[in-house]
Amino acid sequence: MRAATRPVVNHRGAGFRELYKQVTAQLKGVFQTQGEVMLITGSGTAAMEAAVVNLVSPGEKVLVLVGGKFGERWGQIARAYGAEVIEWHYDWRQGAEPEELARRLAADPDIVAVFATHNESSTGVMNDIEGLSRARELSGQRHRALLIVDSVSALGGAPLPMDAWGVDAVVTGSQKCLMVPPGLSFVALGQAALDRLERVTTGRYYLDLRAYRKAAAAGESPYTPAVTLVFALEEALAMLAEEGLENSFARHRLMRDMVRAGIRALGLPLWTGERWASPTVTAVEGAPGLEVEPFRKLVRERFGVELAGGQGEMKGRVFRIGHMGYAGPFDMIAALAAIEQGLAASGFPVKLGAGIAAAQEVWAQWK
Amino acid sequence: MRAATRPVVNHRGAGFRELYKQVTAQLKGVFQTQGEVMLITGSGTAAMEAAVVNLVSPGEKVLVLVGGKFGERWGQIARAYGAEVIEWHYDWRQGAEPEELARRLAADPDIVAVFATHNESSTGVMNDIEGLSRARELSGQRHRALLIVDSVSALGGAPLPMDAWGVDAVVTGSQKCLMVPPGLSFVALGQAALDRLERVTTGRYYLDLRAYRKAAAAGESPYTPAVTLVFALEEALAMLAEEGLENSFARHRLMRDMVRAGIRALGLPLWTGERWASPTVTAVEGAPGLEVEPFRKLVRERFGVELAGGQGEMKGRVFRIGHMGYAGPFDMIAALAAIEQGLAASGFPVKLGAGIAAAQEVWAQWK
Repeated sequence: MRAATRPVVNHRGAGFRELYKQVTAQLKGVFQTQGEVMLITGSGTAAMEAAVVNLVSPGEKVLVLVGGKFGERWGQIARAYGAEVIEWHYDWRQGAEPEELARRLAADPDIVAVFATHNESSTGVMNDIEGLSRARELSGQRHRALLIVDSVSALGGAPLPMDAWGVDAVVTGSQKCLMVPPGLSFVALGQAALDRLERVTTGRYYLDLRAYRKAAAAGESPYTPAVTLVFALEEALAMLAEEGLENSFARHRLMRDMVRAGIRALGLPLWTGERWASPTVTAVEGAPGLEVEPFRKLVRERFGVELAGGQGEMKGRVFRIGHMGYAGPFDMIAALAAIEQGLAASGFPVKLGAGIAAAQEVWAQWK
Repeated sequence: MRAATRPVVNHRGAGFRELYKQVTAQLKGVFQTQGEVMLITGSGTAAMEAAVVNLVSPGEKVLVLVGGKFGERWGQIARAYGAEVIEWHYDWRQGAEPEELARRLAADPDIVAVFATHNESSTGVMNDIEGLSRARELSGQRHRALLIVDSVSALGGAPLPMDAWGVDAVVTGSQKCLMVPPGLSFVALGQAALDRLERVTTGRYYLDLRAYRKAAAAGESPYTPAVTLVFALEEALAMLAEEGLENSFARHRLMRDMVRAGIRALGLPLWTGERWASPTVTAVEGAPGLEVEPFRKLVRERFGVELAGGQGEMKGRVFRIGHMGYAGPFDMIAALAAIEQGLAASGFPVKLGAGIAAAQEVWAQWK
């Protein structure tokens, strides 16, 4: 946070230009792409919208994978800009099956883009992006659809090697695994997406990535960027580089496994199974004798810990434990302790320490 | 700046909701409106675009006042979203004459919106927004066109009482007179604009002010806001309240008058005359024997002071002295000192101290 307190400098000056070029280059490493990464001053939704308005023209057909609130958002944005949107609603407890994507694409050559959610933070389900990308290879021929991925709540905490997996565009936000305060978001584009950028006819201005691309060549953004957040980004990228991407992925997997073992030991149902379990957020269901919303309130008021609630349709059905970015194994133990205290105070049968011990076992056996 | 270092909190929590409501209410005081003020995470251009996409439907006719780079931007945005744009190019050394606006509106009842720039920071010209607003009263009847004003580089530093002047929409950014780091911008809408919001057909999502309005009722923004910048905004609004709006306006006028007296004493030409002189930024021309760009470079390298250059068409024709937000009279003396040192080092005939003394005279006689 201290990095955000440096005096605001002239964002057109040489010093800031150097910094801007440096963070852009480092971000390519995080996205694992040789493509281009654009910084937008705005929330993750702004970056999602940038992907839509720059990669899809009005009237074009797109397939949107909907397994939760953020999948729904892709559809809302695409419809707002006149795309013909086909929504594929899959089970919210699971990810989208690549085989099903292959079937849908084979049946519809007109689809120009597939919009997917890497980590559906409303459900704690992580999609198989590698599988979904490969599913575009149909009987030896590649379907033309671009794969455009929302990784707002995962990039940096879970693998998404864009180029290696053949993903065309990835968007993320500053405040999740990238450990920067909210206010910046990012769009990474591979070559096929960069080509499309120039041909798409959707009206756009603030989010017109052609302007970002042109300005980036001079180390600038087209409009005044959130300068103090770029300073914070510099620091966060240095921290991520020091830890190493692979180590960050491993830390997130460890936290997932600790939380899930702890929750299981406490007898609460996990929203999703092992196959789709997210390394950055875990959703837990209520149980007979445990209403989610009163439980969250009690934990907040009595123990000062804010358990995230369900979003949209999930409200009242789950509480969620975020484990991304700055979080570490001790944070998981603290979260489980708060849950145990809350269960006891709610009169739910619980053996204090049981969840924590199970999490500790996972940690002890880790690697 | 310290305010921006508080730990990032849950932006859906009760504490942040209270803060969000509080700063929104205080902003109404700064805009001097009973309408609504929406906070957008994005640069001033995002707020300009929000005004366009929420207040004009494709195919509708708008009149854009162009007296510099930011007037041009209104036209670019409106065209990007399919409006029929009529550009009124007036002399870049002056503001737009209200009588001419009255003539243009009388001749064209189809115009639905007039886009104006309060303070054209590329030229240091401030428009007569009160006069332009009144110019819509034609022979006792009010022309239906909304008046939509970009006050990114003036609001808080120069009067713009929205309701009293009958202005329908005003946009501004966080980093100018509001003294917050860049990354937030604001749109204030009066009742006529709020009504139009619901009828406009332009496709929009991240900048759809209907969503901001709905979320604001619960003290929230529809998408994750730049939380640390909202903390900084709270502090800046407290500072502005302590100084008082009228005192802030007077301080900015004093700085303008000091700079202009100093520049005149040094024999350099001011870009605009007294009538249109901006209280927040002053543009100065080169002179025989003084090329603007080499002069700026010398002042930056030898004396460590960054004089802003011209933007767009103005590049190489002027340098600019910003005097907004945190700036005070001593900053104007420092700027004039740097200019005097630079002139002497450039071999331009200058009596060291002459500009500063003239500025001091203005200060001594102030009030």
